[in-house]
Amino acid sequence: MYRADLKSELLLRTKKIQDKMIAQGIDACLIAGNANLYYISDRVFRGYVFVRQEGEPIYFVIRPVGLKGDNVIYVRKPEQIAEELVKLGIDMPKKLGLELDWLTFNDAKRLSSVFPEAEVCNSTGVLKGARMVKTDLEVAKMREDGRHQTAAYAKVPEIYKKGMTDLQFQIELERVLRLEGSIGFARVSGHLMEINLGSVLNGENADAPTPFDFAVGGSGVNQSLPVGANGKEMLDGTTVMVDMNGNFNGHQSDITRVWRIGKVDEMTEKAHEVSRQILREMEKMGVPGCKVADMYNRAIEIEEEAGLADYFMGHTQKAAFIGHGVGIELNEMPVLTPRSKDVLEANMTIAIEPKFVIPHVGAVGVENTYVVTSEGLENLTPFPEEMAEL
Amino acid sequence: MYRADLKSELLLRTKKIQDKMIAQGIDACLIAGNANLYYISDRVFRGYVFVRQEGEPIYFVIRPVGLKGDNVIYVRKPEQIAEELVKLGIDMPKKLGLELDWLTFNDAKRLSSVFPEAEVCNSTGVLKGARMVKTDLEVAKMREDGRHQTAAYAKVPEIYKKGMTDLQFQIELERVLRLEGSIGFARVSGHLMEINLGSVLNGENADAPTPFDFAVGGSGVNQSLPVGANGKEMLDGTTVMVDMNGNFNGHQSDITRVWRIGKVDEMTEKAHEVSRQILREMEKMGVPGCKVADMYNRAIEIEEEAGLADYFMGHTQKAAFIGHGVGIELNEMPVLTPRSKDVLEANMTIAIEPKFVIPHVGAVGVENTYVVTSEGLENLTPFPEEMAEL
Repeated sequence: MYRADLKSELLLRTKKIQDKMIAQGIDACLIAGNANLYYISDRVFRGYVFVRQEGEPIYFVIRPVGLKGDNVIYVRKPEQIAEELVKLGIDMPKKLGLELDWLTFNDAKRLSSVFPEAEVCNSTGVLKGARMVKTDLEVAKMREDGRHQTAAYAKVPEIYKKGMTDLQFQIELERVLRLEGSIGFARVSGHLMEINLGSVLNGENADAPTPFDFAVGGSGVNQSLPVGANGKEMLDGTTVMVDMNGNFNGHQSDITRVWRIGKVDEMTEKAHEVSRQILREMEKMGVPGCKVADMYNRAIEIEEEAGLADYFMGHTQKAAFIGHGVGIELNEMPVLTPRSKDVLEANMTIAIEPKFVIPHVGAVGVENTYVVTSEGLENLTPFPEEMAEL
Repeated sequence: MYRADLKSELLLRTKKIQDKMIAQGIDACLIAGNANLYYISDRVFRGYVFVRQEGEPIYFVIRPVGLKGDNVIYVRKPEQIAEELVKLGIDMPKKLGLELDWLTFNDAKRLSSVFPEAEVCNSTGVLKGARMVKTDLEVAKMREDGRHQTAAYAKVPEIYKKGMTDLQFQIELERVLRLEGSIGFARVSGHLMEINLGSVLNGENADAPTPFDFAVGGSGVNQSLPVGANGKEMLDGTTVMVDMNGNFNGHQSDITRVWRIGKVDEMTEKAHEVSRQILREMEKMGVPGCKVADMYNRAIEIEEEAGLADYFMGHTQKAAFIGHGVGIELNEMPVLTPRSKDVLEANMTIAIEPKFVIPHVGAVGVENTYVVTSEGLENLTPFPEEMAEL
């Protein structure tokens, strides 16, 4: 199932899950969600991974045919898992963790019935918690993703042509991202969140509210996907915010940059600089032990001092966070909100995106993905932050 | 919430849901899934639609701000729905339908608790059943989608350049689809199904099995999305199967065509023609009242008579269907399998995709999206079916 040099990595990830299971008294987790399957096996398959408090995971595979490796057992349906565990001499769990924030109601019921004696509890938090602090290999993959993202962003000035619509611009950027190696699929947590390869927000469309919990909205071109570019021409005196998601290797970074078309007013320029000022402050604060709520509150202080509260994190509709964990999924733990109890640890990876929406002009601000180190935040998406002219 | 001319359409859709609710004794459905929200309101939003056995739906909206229209009520959380219904003088349902095959376990529990007196049942089938038979407007939207899809496919010969990889080819085709109006997002049912804008399968990669329930596989370029093009050069003597999903207006059609690079062997040519022969047979059979299982079995008869059983619907790994409903989601009801109890009705829309995988050569066959009429199947994706040379 995985290359030999990956095995120690996957056991490291398993151990992180097991530590949290032990702390919560969970005897075993049966993992079914694609993002979690990918985390623990380095590939997506249809099936389940059975993780106990110790020992290696057992991979119950339905599809595809032909997977090989240690502890791979083919089943046609989940009901066979119990008999396979009996054959292996493994005790049935008394307390079983299932991803109750991911599995459908009926799938959760079905998997529960495989273990009729078990008390079923929610393992979503265990898995999100384990994935929140990255391994060194995961950070390296995200750094590589950041290199590809920024290589694509470097081509933005040559993509833009006067008179383009935001959508034409986005389409050319999608092509650049794909040619740079993007797999063409942004993995997002939560089945209410839908997006194509990302978001280009130009001019007043940046203020159009969206149903989704993205930092900024946009009306989209069709009400079946009401987010992002709306197909209008990019006009002089507006900004274009580029928040595209390449996903180059399964571990994503998240980066936003803004360009201006012609000149924009002073307040817009100022807001962009305040965003950068907030990031500089966050980079210093972001050491292990820092409360993410303190980061949120400090960002609010800075933008309020600048007199920009009406525009911070949206204008007509506001987002309730200034950043979020990122990795296999674009939206992971921790989320930087005023009520969060999360505290930074080394090797957490977080995207911080202090953004402003200036009515009729557009969105401004910078988003970087960082890894937490003892010296503060290290930027995985280094790229000029100035609002350059297109 | 919707334009005046859409209102009668949406009430027609509502009525189709209500008829099925009455047949099953369901007093009310609380709809939360994006595809179903889009079906009944012509837009995706975050929130819920409350549908009773009669009367207009009530739209409980969380996000975005600013939606207007009849029966729109803003809530912050689902718990407020009960008190809003009381204010409206609406009786609490005794039997409540929830999408138990779509909602997460925890979301289903939370919504159930809003109606503590209600017996909760699964409304997934009611909604899938209602959506299975399209309205005339839905068929018109899918016909329009088919026109855009085929306009993009017509550009395939000019996209191809000798020495290209399958991925480079796919990237240029994605751009053509997007410039043609694709929203860049293929809506698929089931959170185990992941895909980017579609599948280009060249040469032996067509035989690589995938975890997903697509008709044909491909290894993909990264194990986090193990499906489709794998980045290898397109070689002489192979085929390239193009099964891309534009999604131009929220109602999708599904079309596959195959090109060859240089010459391919006789069996490959024959298999492609047998696929077309199966489609001609299906087009005649496909009148209201026809059992979809009979269609499946007839297709099997034809390909077995041709001596191609080893290659039909996959070789190393086989798909268990020859077609499927299509609409807001790419994979809808009915599914054309030997055990299906479904019977064709006028205005069902189905994609039929008799495909063969010839080892080392590639995949062949044709997929069209059809609407069921009293004279048989009408093709919504008309486009030359011959395997032309690239």
